[in-house]
Amino acid sequence: MTDSAAPIPLDTDAVVIGAGPAGLFQAFQLGLQGLRPHIVDALPHAGGQCAELYGDKPIYDVPGIPVCTGRELVGLLLEQLAPIGVQWHLGTQVQSLETLADGRFLLGTTAGTQLRARCVFIAAGVGAFVPRTLKIEGIKAHLGRQLHYHPADPEVPPGQRIVVHGGDEAAVAAAVHCADAHPAAAVTLLHRRDVFQAEPGLLARLQALRDAGRIEVVAAQINAIEEQDGRLAALQLTDPQGAPQRLALDQLWVYLGISPRLGPVADWGLAIERKQLLVDPASFATSQPGIYAVGDINSYPGKRRLILCAFHEATLAAFAAAELLAGDKVALQYTTTSARLHRILGVEHPGAS
Amino acid sequence: MTDSAAPIPLDTDAVVIGAGPAGLFQAFQLGLQGLRPHIVDALPHAGGQCAELYGDKPIYDVPGIPVCTGRELVGLLLEQLAPIGVQWHLGTQVQSLETLADGRFLLGTTAGTQLRARCVFIAAGVGAFVPRTLKIEGIKAHLGRQLHYHPADPEVPPGQRIVVHGGDEAAVAAAVHCADAHPAAAVTLLHRRDVFQAEPGLLARLQALRDAGRIEVVAAQINAIEEQDGRLAALQLTDPQGAPQRLALDQLWVYLGISPRLGPVADWGLAIERKQLLVDPASFATSQPGIYAVGDINSYPGKRRLILCAFHEATLAAFAAAELLAGDKVALQYTTTSARLHRILGVEHPGAS
Repeated sequence: MTDSAAPIPLDTDAVVIGAGPAGLFQAFQLGLQGLRPHIVDALPHAGGQCAELYGDKPIYDVPGIPVCTGRELVGLLLEQLAPIGVQWHLGTQVQSLETLADGRFLLGTTAGTQLRARCVFIAAGVGAFVPRTLKIEGIKAHLGRQLHYHPADPEVPPGQRIVVHGGDEAAVAAAVHCADAHPAAAVTLLHRRDVFQAEPGLLARLQALRDAGRIEVVAAQINAIEEQDGRLAALQLTDPQGAPQRLALDQLWVYLGISPRLGPVADWGLAIERKQLLVDPASFATSQPGIYAVGDINSYPGKRRLILCAFHEATLAAFAAAELLAGDKVALQYTTTSARLHRILGVEHPGAS
Repeated sequence: MTDSAAPIPLDTDAVVIGAGPAGLFQAFQLGLQGLRPHIVDALPHAGGQCAELYGDKPIYDVPGIPVCTGRELVGLLLEQLAPIGVQWHLGTQVQSLETLADGRFLLGTTAGTQLRARCVFIAAGVGAFVPRTLKIEGIKAHLGRQLHYHPADPEVPPGQRIVVHGGDEAAVAAAVHCADAHPAAAVTLLHRRDVFQAEPGLLARLQALRDAGRIEVVAAQINAIEEQDGRLAALQLTDPQGAPQRLALDQLWVYLGISPRLGPVADWGLAIERKQLLVDPASFATSQPGIYAVGDINSYPGKRRLILCAFHEATLAAFAAAELLAGDKVALQYTTTSARLHRILGVEHPGAS
């Protein structure tokens, strides 16, 4: 592949958009049908909403699992999925989808990859979970160098001036962690007002670091940036009294929350009602043959947005797609007794038929 | 209640017919809706098909449970169901169902109980799992006294002549166990031919007991019974060569297998196609408002007979019934965040709303 050419598409039977519980079980069911799916998700890890919103919270209504956290459920689904040879595209969004003349679909991702698939499964939940971004002119140019959204464990060269922007637990934790871990850094916590939402222990730690002069809190809004030699040099602010301020910096870490966005899915010409993709409950096919939608993103009579319903939807969608690809009926086999399914799952049962 | 009067019906919101995975999760979902279900099952224990057919066999496609046996799955579902105050009617079949003038349903059971319910959930799988019975004139009169079908741990008074009838693992195991546990009993294993289907260790044990004169094997078919003073005295047999034989006995234990029968459900006037109850996939209601069908017994476009699909069906059926009973929409609440659901589940989460 040369730089000047368009990327060569990766050919695959199936692309699953979304790596939440619905997408993970969709991939498992596709695997049972003998298909090798690709999974694309905006987040850098599997789990989707379930990991983001319920990571440490108990779920009581997954059938046969009296209680588990969101993270535990995702772990179990990944373990179940392990025998299926999934190809992962994490930290990546599907940006474009077009139908080719031969009925296949061409998907373009933010990573520049092109996937050419025979069928597509949209398991995108309430949309891609992406960090809220700053709407400041010219700031995009600094992304990935001086500007970082929700950095997990960012590097801090000595003596740097770090501005952490945000008012919730993630922002406070990042400022505290930075001040603790990098004594030579100058840490500023910037929020529109001097009120922070975090658990009491963390707020107490913040106060102690403020008292010690290790964290400076600035209450203000960002209006514009100042650049110097192509670098982000300072932020122009307005404080709560309306007075202008200026804040010089080396790094800007933004924690304005992670929020779901339906994103490009809305532009693919699929039948949509109230931000939901309309599907046939016999197959979970959208209005476009070969494209299925499962989980929170779909709608049909009786729909309830429950994880356990998504599992059913993904299963029937996998059968429907397998029949579409085979051009014939696909008989049900049981994982308990089918030698074909045992081969796929990598388990041995000499008595199976 | 006097002997002469009809039993006073037990009033309840909901009756679930069947205690397999579908019925157990149906009861759980009804519990989340604030309803207290009764469960009726022909077997003396919960689990249905799943326990009977897959008790010790691995299932790989229950979402979030990479592998479990049928018995383990039933155990997990029972644990999940524990906080819901279920009233059990095991070893009992629903024999009759009639619609009352006020729209409720009156169910009569083989135990003589009458249940008056506002809604009914048929989760009867492929039917009630009942032992195959002998079709011999007059034999029914001895049921429960000298005649027992698949007795689990029958009492054996000393010196009794026990005839175990059947050719599969359960029959061989019963004969071997009886000969081992009751040295003073005379044990005969009666099967139409001298060929038995059981695992090799058990067959070897049978042979050893035959060699020791502790078990006699008789190859013959039963034609008729002989009675004396109202007791079952002997069986009239025909051996494989067509010759008549006579076998005197005190106890007849019959192991001809457990097989599912749709049974009385077929007589309740519900829309049926190929032995399946037709349902609306938005609510899993049958053709009779207030009666729902979930799991292997139902049929709708796209239907696949999978446990995980039954979980979805039971959930939507519970919502549909709750809305029918409330006469209003029922909003979805999440077990992770709903204080109402936490009260039902008996868990404490001070932050829930």
